[in-house]
Formats: sequence, C-alpha cells, structure tokens
Amino acid sequence: MQVFTKHKELIYQAVESIGNRVYHSVYSDNVKNYSDEQKEKGLAAFQSRFNMDFVEHKTKSETWIGEEVSPYLQTGLGIRYPVIETEKLIENAQSAGKAWQKVVIEERAGILAEALERIESRFFELAHATMHTTGQGFMMAFQAAGPHACDRALEAIAMGFSEIKRFPEFVKNELGTGLNATSIRKTYTPIPRGISLVIGCSTFPTWNSLPGIFASLITGNSVIVKPHPKAVLPIAIVITELRTLLKESGLRMDTIQMAVDTTDKPITKVLAEHSAVALIDFTGSSKFGNYIESLPKITFTEKAAINPVIIDSTKDIEGLVNNLAFSISLYSRQMCTAPQNIYVPATGIKITGGTVSFDDFCDRLRKSLDDLVQSKWGPSTLGCVQNDSTLKKVREISMALGTKIAEATSFRMPDFEAARTQSIKVLALDSGKQEIFQREIFGPMVFVIKTEHTDNSIELALRGCTISGAITCLVHCTDFMLSKIIEEKFNAAFIPVSFNFTGQVFVNQHAAFSDFHVSGGNASGNGSIVDPGFITKRFVWIGNRYMT
Amino acid sequence: MQVFTKHKELIYQAVESIGNRVYHSVYSDNVKNYSDEQKEKGLAAFQSRFNMDFVEHKTKSETWIGEEVSPYLQTGLGIRYPVIETEKLIENAQSAGKAWQKVVIEERAGILAEALERIESRFFELAHATMHTTGQGFMMAFQAAGPHACDRALEAIAMGFSEIKRFPEFVKNELGTGLNATSIRKTYTPIPRGISLVIGCSTFPTWNSLPGIFASLITGNSVIVKPHPKAVLPIAIVITELRTLLKESGLRMDTIQMAVDTTDKPITKVLAEHSAVALIDFTGSSKFGNYIESLPKITFTEKAAINPVIIDSTKDIEGLVNNLAFSISLYSRQMCTAPQNIYVPATGIKITGGTVSFDDFCDRLRKSLDDLVQSKWGPSTLGCVQNDSTLKKVREISMALGTKIAEATSFRMPDFEAARTQSIKVLALDSGKQEIFQREIFGPMVFVIKTEHTDNSIELALRGCTISGAITCLVHCTDFMLSKIIEEKFNAAFIPVSFNFTGQVFVNQHAAFSDFHVSGGNASGNGSIVDPGFITKRFVWIGNRYMT
Repeated sequence: MQVFTKHKELIYQAVESIGNRVYHSVYSDNVKNYSDEQKEKGLAAFQSRFNMDFVEHKTKSETWIGEEVSPYLQTGLGIRYPVIETEKLIENAQSAGKAWQKVVIEERAGILAEALERIESRFFELAHATMHTTGQGFMMAFQAAGPHACDRALEAIAMGFSEIKRFPEFVKNELGTGLNATSIRKTYTPIPRGISLVIGCSTFPTWNSLPGIFASLITGNSVIVKPHPKAVLPIAIVITELRTLLKESGLRMDTIQMAVDTTDKPITKVLAEHSAVALIDFTGSSKFGNYIESLPKITFTEKAAINPVIIDSTKDIEGLVNNLAFSISLYSRQMCTAPQNIYVPATGIKITGGTVSFDDFCDRLRKSLDDLVQSKWGPSTLGCVQNDSTLKKVREISMALGTKIAEATSFRMPDFEAARTQSIKVLALDSGKQEIFQREIFGPMVFVIKTEHTDNSIELALRGCTISGAITCLVHCTDFMLSKIIEEKFNAAFIPVSFNFTGQVFVNQHAAFSDFHVSGGNASGNGSIVDPGFITKRFVWIGNRYMT
Repeated sequence: MQVFTKHKELIYQAVESIGNRVYHSVYSDNVKNYSDEQKEKGLAAFQSRFNMDFVEHKTKSETWIGEEVSPYLQTGLGIRYPVIETEKLIENAQSAGKAWQKVVIEERAGILAEALERIESRFFELAHATMHTTGQGFMMAFQAAGPHACDRALEAIAMGFSEIKRFPEFVKNELGTGLNATSIRKTYTPIPRGISLVIGCSTFPTWNSLPGIFASLITGNSVIVKPHPKAVLPIAIVITELRTLLKESGLRMDTIQMAVDTTDKPITKVLAEHSAVALIDFTGSSKFGNYIESLPKITFTEKAAINPVIIDSTKDIEGLVNNLAFSISLYSRQMCTAPQNIYVPATGIKITGGTVSFDDFCDRLRKSLDDLVQSKWGPSTLGCVQNDSTLKKVREISMALGTKIAEATSFRMPDFEAARTQSIKVLALDSGKQEIFQREIFGPMVFVIKTEHTDNSIELALRGCTISGAITCLVHCTDFMLSKIIEEKFNAAFIPVSFNFTGQVFVNQHAAFSDFHVSGGNASGNGSIVDPGFITKRFVWIGNRYMT
C-alpha cells in the first residue's frame, strides 16, 4: 500500500476537483516547466525507434506488423509491433483480470497514479510519437498526448475511486428485538464487468483512449487496447509503463494488452463481438460507432460531430473572428470539438453602433485565417493532415457550390519539407444547401451559411446536430433573452453551449476535472468523459448477506 | 420551497442511509402502529370502489375500461379507468415535462416526499386494492404495496437528490494571468432524458413501479405508467396522490399519467416504441423484457429468475427447513426473489455429528410446508394465485417426471370461500433433468434436485442462473473455504449470495436503503434498485460556458 500512501494527496485532491469542478491540472502543459535534458532525451528516444521492432511490452510473437506513416515526413516509421492471436489475448485478459480485481481499490488507485507519474517522464517522447503519427503540431502533440491525457486519466481514477468507496465494504444490520433479535452481516462488492476493449483513433491516440483505459482499470477490469493501425506508437508507450509497473508490483502485465492490426486486415469487429468482451470504448466514425453501439455490450462512444457556430451579435467583432479562426485552424480542424458550420444572418452581425455585413464577416474570417497561417506559430498551429483520404474528401467539395471565401492550399512547414499541409478552405453557402453542410466534414474546411435571421440559424444548427451530433456549440450573442432561448433549445437536445468566446479561450478545448467531454445525450456519442456513468457502468454492485 | 423545508430532515437522513446502508425504514410496516380508524377507513374506501369509474385522475375520456378480477372473490371488481389516446398522452407528457424539469431539485424532492406522506394516509386502502388484484395475503399486501414501496421510492428520491446535487450549479474558472487573465463562468445542468414509461406487473403493482416512477420524477422526467390490466387500482391510487399534489403545487398534473389497456388490446409496444419515450422501466417476463432491452432506449428491466438454493451443510437443519418452507410459501412463490431449485447432494446434508439424507430432507420440507399451510397464518402467508395461467403452467409439470414430494391442492382461505389457492407442489428430480428445472416456473412449485455432490450443485445452479437469470441465491454451508468459493463463483456471474438464513430473515426479502434489488448484471434484469446507475442514466449533465 506504499504506492497509495505516495499518491494519496494527489488522488484526494483529484476527487475534490471532480466535485467542485474548478480549474485543476496536475501535469504541466507548459514546456518551459521541463528541462532541456528531458526535451532532448524525448526526441532522441523517438528518433531511435525508426525501423525497429517495439519490444517493450515483453510479449512473445512470431508476427510483427506496423504501417505508421509520418504526416511530416510522408515516409513510414518502420516500427513493428507484436501480433497476439485474439483467443490468446482474451485468455490472457481473463486470467490477469482475476488477479487485478482482487487488488484493493486503494492499491489499484496508487498503481494507476504511479503509472501516470512514469508516463510523465516520457511526455517529450510521446509528443514526437504523436506528432509523427497524427500530424499534430509539436505544442499540441505535447499538451494533448501528455499532460492533458494524463489529467483526464487521473480524473477517471478519481471518479472510480470515489464511486467504489461510495458504499461500505461491510455493514452489520441488527434486526428484530428480544428473542427475535438477529444480526445480518452484509458486504458490498463492486464486481468488474469483464474484459474492456478500448478502440483508438488516428488523431488523438492517447487523449481519447486514456479515460476509458483508466476508468476500466480503476474499476478492476482488464483492458485490451486496439489502436488505429496508423497511430500505435503513442499508446504503445503508455501501455509499456503500465505493464512494467504491474510486473514490478507483482501483478500480471496482461492486465493491459495491445492488439494491433492493419488497414487491410482489421480485427476490431472480431474483438468487439467476442463474448468475453463486456465493455467497449470507441472513438471514430459514426458508421462504425453506430455498429459498436448496436452490440449487446456496454459501450462508450465518441462519433462524428458537426459543431455549429451561431453568430448573432457581438461587442468585439475582431476578437470573435480571431478566436474563431484559431479554433478552425487548430490541427487543421481534425478535432472532434472543432466548429464546422458558421451561421450568419443575411442582415449581418449586430455590433456596437452598427452591423458587420455577411460579406464583410467572410472577408474578415479569410484575412484572419491567412494571417494565422502566415504567422510564426501558424504552421505548427495547423499541423499536418493525418491522412490523404481526409484531404481527398475536402477536395471533393467543389467551391462552385457556393461563394469561394478561401481555397485550400499547401503551406510550408518549417523543418519538414515533405509535410502534408493544407490551409483552411472556406465556402459560403445558402441555407438551402443542407445536403452539403448537414453532414460531417472532417478536416481543413468550414462552411459559412447565410441564414434569414438568427432564428433560422438556430433551427438549421439544431437540425444538423440532431442528425449528425454535436459535441460543442459556439454562440455569439449580446442579447440576454435570446441567449437564454438558444441555451435552452440546445441543452434540450443535450448539446452544451459556449457563449461569446474571444481571446485565448477556445470552444474546442475541454478542461479535465471541469468540462464534461461529449454529453452522451446526442448523436455525437453515448459516453461522457468523465461523468459518473462513465465509471458506474463498468462494474456491478453485489451485496452478499451472512447470518451470523 | 416550504415543502422542502418540511421534508428536509427526512431527505437528508435518507441520503445518509443509502450511503451507510444500515437498516432504515421511514414508513412503518407494523399494522399495530396504525389506528383502527385508519384500517376501517381504508377498507371502506376500497369497498366503495366496486363497479365504479375511477375518476380521481381528473382526466377527460370517452372510453373507460377495466378488467381486474379479485383472486379472493374470483369476480370482477368492475372498476373502469379512463383511456387516453397515445398521442395525447405523449403530448401531455412533453408539455408537462417542460415545466417539471424547471422546478429546482429541492422543490422536486420536497413535493415527492410530500406525495409519499399522502400515500401513507392511504396504506390500508392500498393494501386491500393490492390484495384483490394480486392475490397477496393482507399482511404482505399492506407491507409491500405501502411502506416497503414508499421506502424504495424515498430511496430513489434520495439517490436522485444526491446525484443532482453532486456537481455545483455554477462555477467561475479564472484562467491565465496578467493581461491574459480571463474568467469563464460555467454552469452544470442535469437535463432529463425525456418521457419515462413505467410498465407495471400483476403481482407487485406498486412495489415494482414506484422506484422507476420516483427515480424518473426526481431527475425531472415526466412519467407515463402503463399498469398490468389486471392490477391497475393500487398504482392508480398512488398516481392520484401525485397528480393532486402537483396541481396544488401549481404544476401540471400530467407530469404523471396513467395509460390503461386490456389483455386483448395491449398498448405497451406502441408506447415503448414511441420516439418521444426515452426511458423504460419494466417488470415482467423475460421474453417481453428482452424485447424492451432491444429497443434503442435506456431501459431498466426486471425479468424472470430461477433463484437457486444450494444446501451443503448446516448447524440448524430444522431452522433451515422452516426458513426455506416460509420463503417458498410466501405469496405462493409469486415473488421474483423466491427460491425455485433446491440442490441437495445424494450423500445428504452434513449436520453436527451426522447427515440428513436426501429423502429425509424432502420429508422434512414437505412436513414444514404442510404445517405452515395448516397454521393460523398459513393461508394468508400463501395468499392466492394471481391468475389461472400460473396454476395451469404448474399443473402441466407432471409429478411422474420425478419423485412426488408434495402434490398441490387447494386450501381453505378464511373469509374467502371462492379464493384461488394452491399449496406448494414439490418434485424431486435427478440432476440430469435439466430441461425441466433449468427454466423459470413462476408460482407454487419447487424442485429438489439430487446432485452428486456440492460441486455438482454449484455447477448446475450457475448454469441455470446464466441462462435464465437469478436475483438471489441461498446457500447453506458451514465450511468457510467452500462458502468463499461459492460466493466468488456466483458473484463473478453477478449473482448475490445469502448464507445460512434461518429464523425470521428470508432470502426473498430485500430491504430498502440496504439491499440492492436485482444486480443488473445477469439475465434476471439490467436495472438495480436503487444503485447510482438507476438514477444517472435518467439525465444528462450539460455544461455551458460563458465568457464574462
């Protein structure tokens, strides 16, 4: 239990923070807080991996595969990972799970917190691994894959700890009186559901997988992680730290395993449909996510989203435009939380003492996007496009369908001549063209939709969200009553709303311990990171009774 | 908020009790604690209902239906209930729900607690209504339909109150420093899922419906109750109190509505499949329950169960047999928690200084059952059989399939010459006859299964539970290590175990605030009364953010 004692304050503080929901972060996302040695060591560790087999999981395998390609270099990384046959994975998970569920909650929490500390020591290696699989700019790769993912993991540990400590392990009930007096001893045991399958995505291989992994582990389940074949390395590093620590703690490494596959021969369905798999965490397309939800399992999905922006009025048009341009540009709009459809009334945007016309707004947006891409931090803000098919889909949307605001072009990425880059394509559309804008476009493109008035914007945005899901909704409105109406309508459709964001606060960013990520109530997904249900569905309370 | 102030202590105490899980009961189940006047008034109120229309819900209807038959009198009650067209029910529920969800949680909790106090004033009327629809004996009808159901309802209020109060309504996050300092205001709002459909059963019309009703109401959802057509009156009385109080509180009566149908023209599927229905609570057959679970909704089911009894050894064979005979006899084994399959080794039951042979055990069980039915309290312990089809199914199981221990016969029910009664049929079977005993037999019949040894008993019992579900499992075993093995195996299948019950503590009884009813992890159902998930699945946390 030393490991719990070591991390007790961290865990208790995290439990308090999920309750009070004020800003809380444990793992610093400011690179200045790390030493040059850490940075250099991380880069060197990543560079030493090219064309090597990833052996750190200490698994035996005769087959090694890998197909990761750096969006910065557009060459393969040449890293191969061990293939373990499905039935063997299941068998290992079952056997390791039996031991893991018997570990008391304090020790489980301590071990998982310790794992995060060890992952912290590899944040820079993780950053480069994430950059060169997802295409994220360095800063985002560092922040999202490392500190932010670990904060979310700690949030899951804390929610798990508090749910499992919620009921006593043991009570004695005294019943009846006199000659009929009896006492019954009762125990309350949280029994883990079984094997947890965590299916990763290609854009956020750790951020989107760590909450599910840590939620399942803290509640006593064994985990099989099936990363996206194009983004294995970051999560493989995380899994290494967990496996190593489990072994050191006298527990089974196979409490967490990695299942790799290739784009040509995917194994996800085989794993997902296996009768021994009880829990599935999934991030990815709506089509596959709907299939996952249709399985007779407990699922936590994050699927497509067409996040709307409704612009009615503002006190700071410049702040609005610059904030929006950044939100759109960040990682070339490959974030699940990025805005897609910007609704602007034909009559323009009300500002102090006047209006900004629809065309004027489009001009301002184009200019702000241009300025951003040409600024010193522009290229690393946009990063690379993770894969060719994203670019292809964006290219297929013809600018002839509406008014061309900004065409997409490649831009120069310093240090990486071969990088797959693309500036943000902006197309202005009439509100009638719903067949174009009411579906998810993933990647560097947005639509500015000309509506009759704000009521029309609300109606169109809600329709799209209902069909295709929304994780966020950004609203600019200075009218208090109208804001309340918008809030109520979107909230009723289980969509959270962010109002009047300018400056350095962006609608795409959700803070651990404070913001729930995905509401779980609309078509964008059925799981919410980290609400109580994200934990409680992973185990069953069993009450035994003993006559004494 | 006066109504909250009035019930604040009650609610806080209930919140504490769900946390510490010691014995807690608010509504007395001892008839001695009620006045003669209350008893007489309740009986008179019930008797005045024969052949009358039930107008207390103040709904307009041109069609009135009712087909309840008293199992005691075997004549129809002649009570008719108003039919409301499905689309009208949905429309009412949507409109009333909008107002209800805006009522602050304290006031919702206060109103619901006040409703329980008013229901308490009608416990005796409820008791007679329950007796004459379900066939329960008076004492059970009184306890289960009134105080125990209300304790469970209060448990749901308390769990709902604590989940909704779990996160702050409002926080302010201060971000950045100096010139970049910004503050973000955030709100956390629990948005109800929508319309909640509660589908009642014929044997426990209030006990099995109140948890779902109160869980949905406390979380802000509007409710439509679809009672079993043969057991409407008890829940109709409960709904009256809620509707009346809602109206007095300036709220919409239609926050809770009743949808009645007939056996010939059921409406349950139409309601369950309606797109506006988001939540479904169901108690009933596995077949219909599986259909309910297959719908793309959030469901809470309680289905069939074949609760096993494993007898290995005991320090008190007489106490064991008498306790078991009572558990089997109670309400003629029409309780979802009643034991069905009694596994006894061919080598007999180990007792202090010897063994009780299989045949000796069967004799003792038969005698204890006989003694019980012939005792003063026997007839009212067994009560009546709710409907003919239960009797028919029991009759169809031929005693020629095994060794006849006790044949079922009708017995005399004091005061009710026409009562549909039946003593418990007991059939001893070889363990090979799984096609007979590995399915649910609902009603006055049990199997005593001769196994090779206790390991064989465990294996057979587990197999049955896995296929057909189990809500409880009773084990008699004096060997500590063997007990631990049994506990672990059943718990792993999400089945709670009760050990060595003798005296006045029965495996069929689950206490509110202390025992979870149905684990939610096996084939007997996916809901657990009242675990945190029974509440949290009924709403979605939505976090809005405002730049200030």
